[in-house]
Amino acid sequence: MRLNYLLILLLSVQISFAILSHRIRPSKKFQSPFSYEKKSFTEFLDHFSFGPSHKFNITYLISTEKWKPGGPILFYTGNEGSIEHFARNTGLIFELAENLTGAVIFAEHRYYGTSLPFGNQSFNDRRHFGYLIAEQALADYAKLLTDFKCANHQFANSPVISFGGSYGGMLTAWFRQAYPNVVTGGLAASAPIWLFPGMCDCRGFYQVTTRAYQQGGGSQCTSTIREIWSLIDEIAKKPHGLDDLSGAFKTCELFSSGDFVSGFVEDYLVTLAMGNYPYSTSFLGELPAWPVKEFCKAIVNCPIEGKLPPQVEKFACAFFSLYNYKQEDKCLSFASGSENLDSRGWELQTCMEMTNPICSDGKTDMFRPRGWDPIEFSNSCQDRFGVQPRMDWAGLQWWAKDIITDTRLIFSNGDLDPWSAFGVLNETSAPGATVVRIGRGAHHLDLRGSHPNDTEEVRAARGLIRDKIASWIEEWHRESHPLYCLEF
Amino acid sequence: MRLNYLLILLLSVQISFAILSHRIRPSKKFQSPFSYEKKSFTEFLDHFSFGPSHKFNITYLISTEKWKPGGPILFYTGNEGSIEHFARNTGLIFELAENLTGAVIFAEHRYYGTSLPFGNQSFNDRRHFGYLIAEQALADYAKLLTDFKCANHQFANSPVISFGGSYGGMLTAWFRQAYPNVVTGGLAASAPIWLFPGMCDCRGFYQVTTRAYQQGGGSQCTSTIREIWSLIDEIAKKPHGLDDLSGAFKTCELFSSGDFVSGFVEDYLVTLAMGNYPYSTSFLGELPAWPVKEFCKAIVNCPIEGKLPPQVEKFACAFFSLYNYKQEDKCLSFASGSENLDSRGWELQTCMEMTNPICSDGKTDMFRPRGWDPIEFSNSCQDRFGVQPRMDWAGLQWWAKDIITDTRLIFSNGDLDPWSAFGVLNETSAPGATVVRIGRGAHHLDLRGSHPNDTEEVRAARGLIRDKIASWIEEWHRESHPLYCLEF
Repeated sequence: MRLNYLLILLLSVQISFAILSHRIRPSKKFQSPFSYEKKSFTEFLDHFSFGPSHKFNITYLISTEKWKPGGPILFYTGNEGSIEHFARNTGLIFELAENLTGAVIFAEHRYYGTSLPFGNQSFNDRRHFGYLIAEQALADYAKLLTDFKCANHQFANSPVISFGGSYGGMLTAWFRQAYPNVVTGGLAASAPIWLFPGMCDCRGFYQVTTRAYQQGGGSQCTSTIREIWSLIDEIAKKPHGLDDLSGAFKTCELFSSGDFVSGFVEDYLVTLAMGNYPYSTSFLGELPAWPVKEFCKAIVNCPIEGKLPPQVEKFACAFFSLYNYKQEDKCLSFASGSENLDSRGWELQTCMEMTNPICSDGKTDMFRPRGWDPIEFSNSCQDRFGVQPRMDWAGLQWWAKDIITDTRLIFSNGDLDPWSAFGVLNETSAPGATVVRIGRGAHHLDLRGSHPNDTEEVRAARGLIRDKIASWIEEWHRESHPLYCLEF
Repeated sequence: MRLNYLLILLLSVQISFAILSHRIRPSKKFQSPFSYEKKSFTEFLDHFSFGPSHKFNITYLISTEKWKPGGPILFYTGNEGSIEHFARNTGLIFELAENLTGAVIFAEHRYYGTSLPFGNQSFNDRRHFGYLIAEQALADYAKLLTDFKCANHQFANSPVISFGGSYGGMLTAWFRQAYPNVVTGGLAASAPIWLFPGMCDCRGFYQVTTRAYQQGGGSQCTSTIREIWSLIDEIAKKPHGLDDLSGAFKTCELFSSGDFVSGFVEDYLVTLAMGNYPYSTSFLGELPAWPVKEFCKAIVNCPIEGKLPPQVEKFACAFFSLYNYKQEDKCLSFASGSENLDSRGWELQTCMEMTNPICSDGKTDMFRPRGWDPIEFSNSCQDRFGVQPRMDWAGLQWWAKDIITDTRLIFSNGDLDPWSAFGVLNETSAPGATVVRIGRGAHHLDLRGSHPNDTEEVRAARGLIRDKIASWIEEWHRESHPLYCLEF
């Protein structure tokens, strides 16, 4: 089995980024059950200046087979990865297309997948990668949709409903804010719109992760995990300690440091929480149903060999049993032969406008205490890429906590999704929006297609989402929405 | 007397541009009755990419002497000219500051006045002037206001009310759309937000101008003007015809062609309509009270000398008498020694995202029939500046005619202002906005300070505007509007 971290916002956890960027693999096994055409559309590199004149193509997927006149266009605001990966894992849209006689468009985010503005030069320097900006991506989408309607007038009377998960959910929320002329309403699923410096407690991410393990395996599980970090650290400092750890975790290569071990482990624990779905999935790597519970159970059931402290042996064994739950791997791999541009893309975004501080204190969470320092982070961006983040910009541009004017938006969050810590969890701050909370829910579970093992909570959430969207479509048809097209 | 065309959208009438750009002079006589401090604020050249890292300063004027805690910040979204010129001619803001215990800020638009991003290199080529874009200017304003509040926490509880006239009014409407977190509400005065290709009948501009002359001097006046173009043309083609015309108009230099005469005359007739205020002003040049009526009256009263057809002689005499109504000039000047960057700025804007087609048919208006061809216009931009306009962009970015989601905006228009042809004149398309129409009103008369000669119509409009703004301020104070500031 291979970890497939593609497109998860976890990539933004600074400390774990270097590791993750080696482990991203395209999912090969998972074929989409939905049919669509793959097309491309020409965009300006820079919508908001006439400095550069460069143009490039973005990829989009389109399916109109279920569409009937007046039916909506269901649009996915692509985020940090290949658009086909999102299409494969966002079954809700295809089900709604059938239910609401809608067309489906999935648009790829610039600088990801095949939508590279300068081909393999796209990440050379700031003059090349500097346009990897949410505002530009949304302008890409607005232009794509408008030109599509203007070129295919039968869709002029089709309201656009936007969907996105994680960073894609942030994009959907902002898309509705910036272009209400283009977007009738949106589902921002597991969208941590408040992950920016100073907007939320940076400890929230690991606190919710801890809560997921508390729910899945009780205090016994979280206590074992809380103790593991100092034990790993102690062992790593001993002669042959890293060899022993590598042996316990059954790694293919040797661990390089205690910090590496802990970082690797932390990321995976977070992945299990994000992908804590009620059935097995390949979205964030190959995971069994309820992986958090499985992991906690495995800690209890794993044997003790007596070479290392029992907690470490049980933990490492549990770790490998989850990693290898399909019984296809002989060892745990953390190296990948090819570099993945997608992870580099997101790392760059965090160094420009998408800075998201995440920290832990080891008390309200079960992780190692780690602060987050804006100056240090900014300097590291300068060193790595030659750019410094504008940390206050996204807050200004996307209204920060002053979203009282948001309308026709659904903010959905799983209660046990780490990213929910930075999401909109009640309607007090967004009285014009709809807040949906999914008990026992992981990272945008609601966007996935229906499954026999779905919980009652997610079924109810999808029903509510469907009804809300249907009501927006009806409203839109009652209103006047003249489409503006240049006819020459 | 000197014509002072600075800052008027008329600059965008393509045919007249070359002439106008020679006649712009800063007003020297008119001193502001209001006191303010002049400051500057550092902005990114490009808010929407990390390509260029260049920064520059914009100028702003600030007055806090009338402000009391909780009182609003009354903000002027500077348009195409030096910001002090707007401060001198927007007395309404200072009067409202007194009435509502508000602070006042006038922000200068990038690339105008002293806010040049690259000093005297600012207009060199597209890499320099390409950032002269409304979106960037609005980001400048949003950043200025937010940083001001974050640095001066006593203003955190002050709602921002935005004001602007003409292109500045468009900016105010868009400012509220894009940054409702920053802007509580706005007065978009005489804002031709629909002046873009395909949004309105391009003949509207000259039709309303004609209506202003109909109202000021009846059919006799409009008939005389309608006949003048072919007469000028005929005379200009004769030997010494241009000399004769120069003599009749008392020009300081000779006219160069019949087209030049007609273009010059047309512009001035439009200026009289735009500046058709109930008292004498220096805003759009030195004009008497109700200049349109004065002009029509002068046509009737002017003597006939017998050298040229009587209509031409009367017309030319009336023209000069208005031009020289202060009796300070011996001849009519259309040349200026220095080039004016401000006019070049607006011309560039029309060649990028601000393309505004204006045409006439000579039947529904009293002007020469002239079409408007987008291809021709685009090619001329390429020839002149090396850029081609993106004519559909502003419509997409600023919602074109789909402004059903606009709230807390006032669109005010004078019924006899040529630019009203492209403005929001009823609430059908903008049910969340307030539409104010000012009978007998010229170009954003409502923005001017009170005057004893003010009409009942403009007094009523200002009262309504004041009450609406006061109600927004109250509403805002009842709502929750958390300010987001980075504290490190």
